[in-house]
Amino acid sequence: MFRHDQHLQFHAKPEKPDALFAMKLQEILGGQFGEMTVMMQYLWQGWTCRVPGKYKDMIMDIGTEEIGHVEMLTTMLARLLEGAPAETTEKAVAANPVLAAVIGGMNPQHAIVGGGGPLPRDSQGVPWNASYIVASGNLLADFRSNVAAEAQSRLQTSRVMGMTDDPGVKEMLRFNLARDTYHQQQWLLGIEQLIADGYVEHGIENSNGDQENADHNHTFWSFGTDSRACEGRWAQGPSLIGGPDLDCLAEPVALTDDTPLPPPPDPKLFVTYDGSQGPGKPGNAAGAHQQGLTNVVKKVKDALE
Amino acid sequence: MFRHDQHLQFHAKPEKPDALFAMKLQEILGGQFGEMTVMMQYLWQGWTCRVPGKYKDMIMDIGTEEIGHVEMLTTMLARLLEGAPAETTEKAVAANPVLAAVIGGMNPQHAIVGGGGPLPRDSQGVPWNASYIVASGNLLADFRSNVAAEAQSRLQTSRVMGMTDDPGVKEMLRFNLARDTYHQQQWLLGIEQLIADGYVEHGIENSNGDQENADHNHTFWSFGTDSRACEGRWAQGPSLIGGPDLDCLAEPVALTDDTPLPPPPDPKLFVTYDGSQGPGKPGNAAGAHQQGLTNVVKKVKDALE
Amino acid sequence: MFRHDQHLQFHAKPEKPDALFAMKLQEILGGQFGEMTVMMQYLWQGWTCRVPGKYKDMIMDIGTEEIGHVEMLTTMLARLLEGAPAETTEKAVAANPVLAAVIGGMNPQHAIVGGGGPLPRDSQGVPWNASYIVASGNLLADFRSNVAAEAQSRLQTSRVMGMTDDPGVKEMLRFNLARDTYHQQQWLLGIEQLIADGYVEHGIENSNGDQENADHNHTFWSFGTDSRACEGRWAQGPSLIGGPDLDCLAEPVALTDDTPLPPPPDPKLFVTYDGSQGPGKPGNAAGAHQQGLTNVVKKVKDALE
Amino acid sequence: MFRHDQHLQFHAKPEKPDALFAMKLQEILGGQFGEMTVMMQYLWQGWTCRVPGKYKDMIMDIGTEEIGHVEMLTTMLARLLEGAPAETTEKAVAANPVLAAVIGGMNPQHAIVGGGGPLPRDSQGVPWNASYIVASGNLLADFRSNVAAEAQSRLQTSRVMGMTDDPGVKEMLRFNLARDTYHQQQWLLGIEQLIADGYVEHGIENSNGDQENADHNHTFWSFGTDSRACEGRWAQGPSLIGGPDLDCLAEPVALTDDTPLPPPPDPKLFVTYDGSQGPGKPGNAAGAHQQGLTNVVKKVKDALE
Amino acid sequence: MFRHDQHLQFHAKPEKPDALFAMKLQEILGGQFGEMTVMMQYLWQGWTCRVPGKYKDMIMDIGTEEIGHVEMLTTMLARLLEGAPAETTEKAVAANPVLAAVIGGMNPQHAIVGGGGPLPRDSQGVPWNASYIVASGNLLADFRSNVAAEAQSRLQTSRVMGMTDDPGVKEMLRFNLARDTYHQQQWLLGIEQLIADGYVEHGIENSNGDQENADHNHTFWSFGTDSRACEGRWAQGPSLIGGPDLDCLAEPVALTDDTPLPPPPDPKLFVTYDGSQGPGKPGNAAGAHQQGLTNVVKKVKDALE
Amino acid sequence: MFRHDQHLQFHAKPEKPDALFAMKLQEILGGQFGEMTVMMQYLWQGWTCRVPGKYKDMIMDIGTEEIGHVEMLTTMLARLLEGAPAETTEKAVAANPVLAAVIGGMNPQHAIVGGGGPLPRDSQGVPWNASYIVASGNLLADFRSNVAAEAQSRLQTSRVMGMTDDPGVKEMLRFNLARDTYHQQQWLLGIEQLIADGYVEHGIENSNGDQENADHNHTFWSFGTDSRACEGRWAQGPSLIGGPDLDCLAEPVALTDDTPLPPPPDPKLFVTYDGSQGPGKPGNAAGAHQQGLTNVVKKVKDALE
Repeated sequence: MFRHDQHLQFHAKPEKPDALFAMKLQEILGGQFGEMTVMMQYLWQGWTCRVPGKYKDMIMDIGTEEIGHVEMLTTMLARLLEGAPAETTEKAVAANPVLAAVIGGMNPQHAIVGGGGPLPRDSQGVPWNASYIVASGNLLADFRSNVAAEAQSRLQTSRVMGMTDDPGVKEMLRFNLARDTYHQQQWLLGIEQLIADGYVEHGIENSNGDQENADHNHTFWSFGTDSRACEGRWAQGPSLIGGPDLDCLAEPVALTDDTPLPPPPDPKLFVTYDGSQGPGKPGNAAGAHQQGLTNVVKKVKDALE
Repeated sequence: MFRHDQHLQFHAKPEKPDALFAMKLQEILGGQFGEMTVMMQYLWQGWTCRVPGKYKDMIMDIGTEEIGHVEMLTTMLARLLEGAPAETTEKAVAANPVLAAVIGGMNPQHAIVGGGGPLPRDSQGVPWNASYIVASGNLLADFRSNVAAEAQSRLQTSRVMGMTDDPGVKEMLRFNLARDTYHQQQWLLGIEQLIADGYVEHGIENSNGDQENADHNHTFWSFGTDSRACEGRWAQGPSLIGGPDLDCLAEPVALTDDTPLPPPPDPKLFVTYDGSQGPGKPGNAAGAHQQGLTNVVKKVKDALE
Repeated sequence: MFRHDQHLQFHAKPEKPDALFAMKLQEILGGQFGEMTVMMQYLWQGWTCRVPGKYKDMIMDIGTEEIGHVEMLTTMLARLLEGAPAETTEKAVAANPVLAAVIGGMNPQHAIVGGGGPLPRDSQGVPWNASYIVASGNLLADFRSNVAAEAQSRLQTSRVMGMTDDPGVKEMLRFNLARDTYHQQQWLLGIEQLIADGYVEHGIENSNGDQENADHNHTFWSFGTDSRACEGRWAQGPSLIGGPDLDCLAEPVALTDDTPLPPPPDPKLFVTYDGSQGPGKPGNAAGAHQQGLTNVVKKVKDALE
Repeated sequence: MFRHDQHLQFHAKPEKPDALFAMKLQEILGGQFGEMTVMMQYLWQGWTCRVPGKYKDMIMDIGTEEIGHVEMLTTMLARLLEGAPAETTEKAVAANPVLAAVIGGMNPQHAIVGGGGPLPRDSQGVPWNASYIVASGNLLADFRSNVAAEAQSRLQTSRVMGMTDDPGVKEMLRFNLARDTYHQQQWLLGIEQLIADGYVEHGIENSNGDQENADHNHTFWSFGTDSRACEGRWAQGPSLIGGPDLDCLAEPVALTDDTPLPPPPDPKLFVTYDGSQGPGKPGNAAGAHQQGLTNVVKKVKDALE
Repeated sequence: MFRHDQHLQFHAKPEKPDALFAMKLQEILGGQFGEMTVMMQYLWQGWTCRVPGKYKDMIMDIGTEEIGHVEMLTTMLARLLEGAPAETTEKAVAANPVLAAVIGGMNPQHAIVGGGGPLPRDSQGVPWNASYIVASGNLLADFRSNVAAEAQSRLQTSRVMGMTDDPGVKEMLRFNLARDTYHQQQWLLGIEQLIADGYVEHGIENSNGDQENADHNHTFWSFGTDSRACEGRWAQGPSLIGGPDLDCLAEPVALTDDTPLPPPPDPKLFVTYDGSQGPGKPGNAAGAHQQGLTNVVKKVKDALE
Repeated sequence: MFRHDQHLQFHAKPEKPDALFAMKLQEILGGQFGEMTVMMQYLWQGWTCRVPGKYKDMIMDIGTEEIGHVEMLTTMLARLLEGAPAETTEKAVAANPVLAAVIGGMNPQHAIVGGGGPLPRDSQGVPWNASYIVASGNLLADFRSNVAAEAQSRLQTSRVMGMTDDPGVKEMLRFNLARDTYHQQQWLLGIEQLIADGYVEHGIENSNGDQENADHNHTFWSFGTDSRACEGRWAQGPSLIGGPDLDCLAEPVALTDDTPLPPPPDPKLFVTYDGSQGPGKPGNAAGAHQQGLTNVVKKVKDALE
């Protein structure tokens, strides 16, 4: 259950409106790595976290903070949009020709849809969607996604900051930058904590590790002409998970002579076919699929007796 | 420019068809963290990489490898779909009642749209889209995204592997697991290499670092009742970037008494308003916006003289 | 079955072209509340309406009218786009520097994709999609959605109208405003008619009303510090559906001491877990799920005997 | 700024797991009218509300409540998914053939992506997106959208409730039904309050009302053969906004002889054209568009002098 | 303007309900090549067609027919969904265990969202969207798209028909097949008519044909090892547009020694860069971009004098 | 498996940067008919092609070529974006007022998201998605889609070319035009080859041709008032597939007196209904659906004996 404190976590007051910049600022609110993304990603990870105590609480805490960041951004945007041109181009041009440039660049949905308010969309007007986020239940994999989200988010904030001189906007963005710096650390240290607490061995996701094909977990394959990729650390030196040193396959050859030819098609699907692999296999209960369920009828019988 | 070698990089032959499993396997082909995602993400990062030599070549090499992984998955899927039921439910049920279960679970688009072939979609039929990927030009931020993608991708592969007993499928997935293990290392070592080569100081994205609000880059804010989050390493001990130790704000108070109230609206937008902040500012050239472009007319004049 | 009358329902002739305004006008054609939305929503509701006679006919009638509104908008847009700049920026600038502003603001897809014609997209270029609409078969719920769609659509039309001075465009929009006014009434009166005809008791959707938890259907919960929400009519006075008066819960406390902790995870899914809730429950046929299908095997046996 | 109370607002404990029902329950969490929609819609409307006091506080309060409803649903889903089959079909079938049906119907992303947890998606796996919501700043139009969302949401909850017999699930859904009943009233009474407080005259959105074409705001147009739609209240009796009584146009004729023919195309766009309307108008600065910016150059000159 | 005839164009009566088949049938209503696609594509092309008379009328006529096809499909779906299981799995299983299979395969949105009615979505629940359609104004290019849409649509109809034995459903689908056969011809003959009427020279879209690089418009490039593609008609024999015979480039070499290295980045964007191409070019008014607008200030001055 | 040649297939060097044009050029990279679409469509068709030899190799060859075209476009875009304005509007305006126009029109994601690089999106910022492509396994239907894609793609390239005067850009686009001309032929000749090789009879998709309703496969239906569509070749003359001549139905009458009325609804779905068709049929195992599975229980029994 949540509660709302009527004050903003931090200032969100521009010195003056700027509708053109507002359009750009939408990116770090409703874009792929905007505040909506981290808010939803952390809340979702928190709700599905199976480790009560410091881990679950930490994720819920930051998720709750991020709702407040969305609140700061929406407030800032509404203020940047104050008095934004919503009249005819001609009128605007009459009073100030150069203003036409701003009118051209503005997002008209800020007026038509939002009534002078922010939109849950990115800087190009694409609505936020939940395929931006992940909550897998595996804290190592999710903390990796969280470090990435904070790094990209910080980078975009930094780029957006260069597009304004407004001291009020910059003050808020300096706060945001700082939180993104801290949050990157928070997730990296979360991984260290997972190791310290014995949840994972190291920082590499390796579930079903005993089943992986160990011949192919330490080799860089180089597919380009004159590639110099083998010079990098990733192609030499000790592995991060023990075992053989990393190496480089400079002239890779396919590990099989198999070609990507699908099997003969079901005639009922009218797929073009020359018959070279024999008659197509119709998808019926007497066909190939039955093999995948061999003895099921027998098992039903057995179960009933 | 690319070339195609007609052989698959690795085997992609199931022992027998399994249309129900094919539906699930779509996730690691066309899902958020499927092979299409890493293929497109790496190619895109490679094409936009500004550091020729080992970095650019490495990214292009792995991008090229991943096209081949998409090829392996599509081939495997077409083979798993061989002879999949494409007839009426009643007929299938007549020959083998339990088969109806499989028919219920299958993805009908495999037959109707794909003609017994794979789809560029996830396991729920959502088409792959480019907002799954990122290519920012900043190698640190992008390598972080790449580690995350490989970790999530490996985890999903591991989960999917538990849903089949087919030795042919498992053999391919064991290869995929190994590549995902190696590729996680590749990107982590890429970050180490960036540090060694002097491109970045440490693994924290900190562009415009001198501008960030240093008061807020080392503190965990705890917003939950009885939260135990302050017990974690992320809330104590040395920072990863120097400066003050990390600390914990257990009873956070808003840093401002500002509330999220937008300014008075433009009357032409018909937003509900009580007038308490004074008259709404109409969005015209003589209005508030003009302040944001103070002296522009003068500047045009000056520029012309 | 439908027929086409070659005349437009109403005039759709701008006095002169205006490509910048055309971009904005797209919102009320292909946006969330554009003409495509009401056209598709009403047709769909009409086709699925189970009450023949005045209800079904009314919905089909307005759905058919709306196809004609889409026709009016597409025609208006094509005319607004006449002679829109499709040449190089430099050439346009050479002849008329301020025109560059318009070129900046235009939607290039109008030229590249539409050939100087309208697009089935909103003012930001997002394609129309069917998740904007609803047709539930429940006329009360759907008429509520229809009132909302007409109100939002009218508001957006009104905002867009303020962005043009073209008398031809304004004449058409004045017609659209009038239809939106009438259509709001049409749906509200449709609800009154549903009550008069005995299909519903009142305007509140209350299916399975006898099962709802009557303790919680008349109380406002206030979650904000210093919230003044309890002063409103929604938190006091008689309920619209009878029963206890509305009241206000100013200091709400959770109704349970349950916390959002998920159960122990299936070990095969590699979810991070500390074992504190006992061993994870593997998702197999002998596991927890079997309980959900208790005695099914027995029932199969019984059914067969 | 927000805070998190570690207790759920209400119970969310199923008696036993049910992965097949979990798939269906996703609809009222991540669907068009799920809890994510109302949570985001109300928060967004609250942040952009310009009327401080009871209106803004009320919207923020319910937005905050809805975050907690998302929390309840995610918790319920994780519990319903406990021990859900994540093994091979064959193994499940071996132990209990009928279980195969459930496996067929389950959402595999619950295991592969969510690790046995909920997804921010609907019952068909479509990710939630922000085009489900609206926040226009106009409280009348938005409250109409909110009544509709609550009515549809309640209806869907009611339908989903019929698909389970689990007493724990039903207990939670009975609470949800009650809240949806109350919330419908809350928004309807919100409209009454807007009228009482003088923000609007009546419940019909009528911005720019003086500009609408009064000839067409009270007439039903009937486009169907043998339509009986004129029998309804919407086609007779007093208007809700005063003025002439409603009436019915049973044999509608187009109000214009205009046909939807676009103007001659720009030759540079290679649109098929027979020249019948004269030469195509090229989109250049000397062409038709210049008319739309008549005298702009002159105005620049004037402004500078 | 449109009118509605209350009769269906053709029968849409299944002999008996079949909810599992209804899920599949959604593909040819709301999928990529479903009836919604052709309806919207043709209406849109009709409204934007610049050639009055037989071309424009033909497109509008078929667009109008297709609205009626959507009507037939929605009606058929509602009838197939009659009495579809909307109760608990356990109850269904109690009465008829095998029915569980059908319940697993059904689309739950048919009940929860559609109330037993059709959905504007494909067979996997993805909402229809307008990026499935095209209306370019160029009749040759659009008729090509229309032939393709009818061919794919007919193929999918044919595949779906194999999934039912219901004589009522098959009767309707036989009608649909016939229309798709005719409509393929209609568009191919439309292209012949365009040639006969002199709108195009041949069936190849060749706008700006005089500008294309004639060295590269007749050669097949073969990028695969051991490719046999040069054996086909596409790699030999006369061109369809005159000029040199087609030929085959079996061992293609890049036409340039350029590599895909982007230029030095703007330092304000924090892109990783080694400086090897000289200092990054900052994106300011004094920088590189100014070159693209050379003399604009001068032109403004000239225009004003 | 694929390999990368470090050289571009063709030049991709603009003479000078042009960020405004870069925004437009995105359409033919990441739009509906951009290079990403043909790349993915051909690779997917190649992987699922069942006819080894010249057909499969041809499709794989062109798919591989198209990856290289995406590479050319991304490189061109990064170069066009060199030094694009990423500073404040005010600063840009200070140095060059008209530059503000360009800043208004630029895509801010090029800077914020792409770091001065291309985006996998169209010219309006909509991310590329896989529902743009098709791979049905039926070569005739797919080659039809491919002709259409090349025709639309060529048309858009031609339109975009008119928007630039940059000789470097134009040189690349002239190459692209030529390839699109050739590729249209390639697919049309592919259809001729399919006929010559006996895979299809003619160019009309006619699977299940013996089942189609032959009464309706040669008639144009005209639904418009005063339609002149019957004058076209599509409504007269010989059919392309033999049989009766094409004809025209100028005054079409519905072929049935059926109206689109759905059956009585399941009472548990709370659909509005007047009972006129008798009691609603509840969706239970004893209800209507059982008819669709007549004798299934008996069949299970038989199968087990």
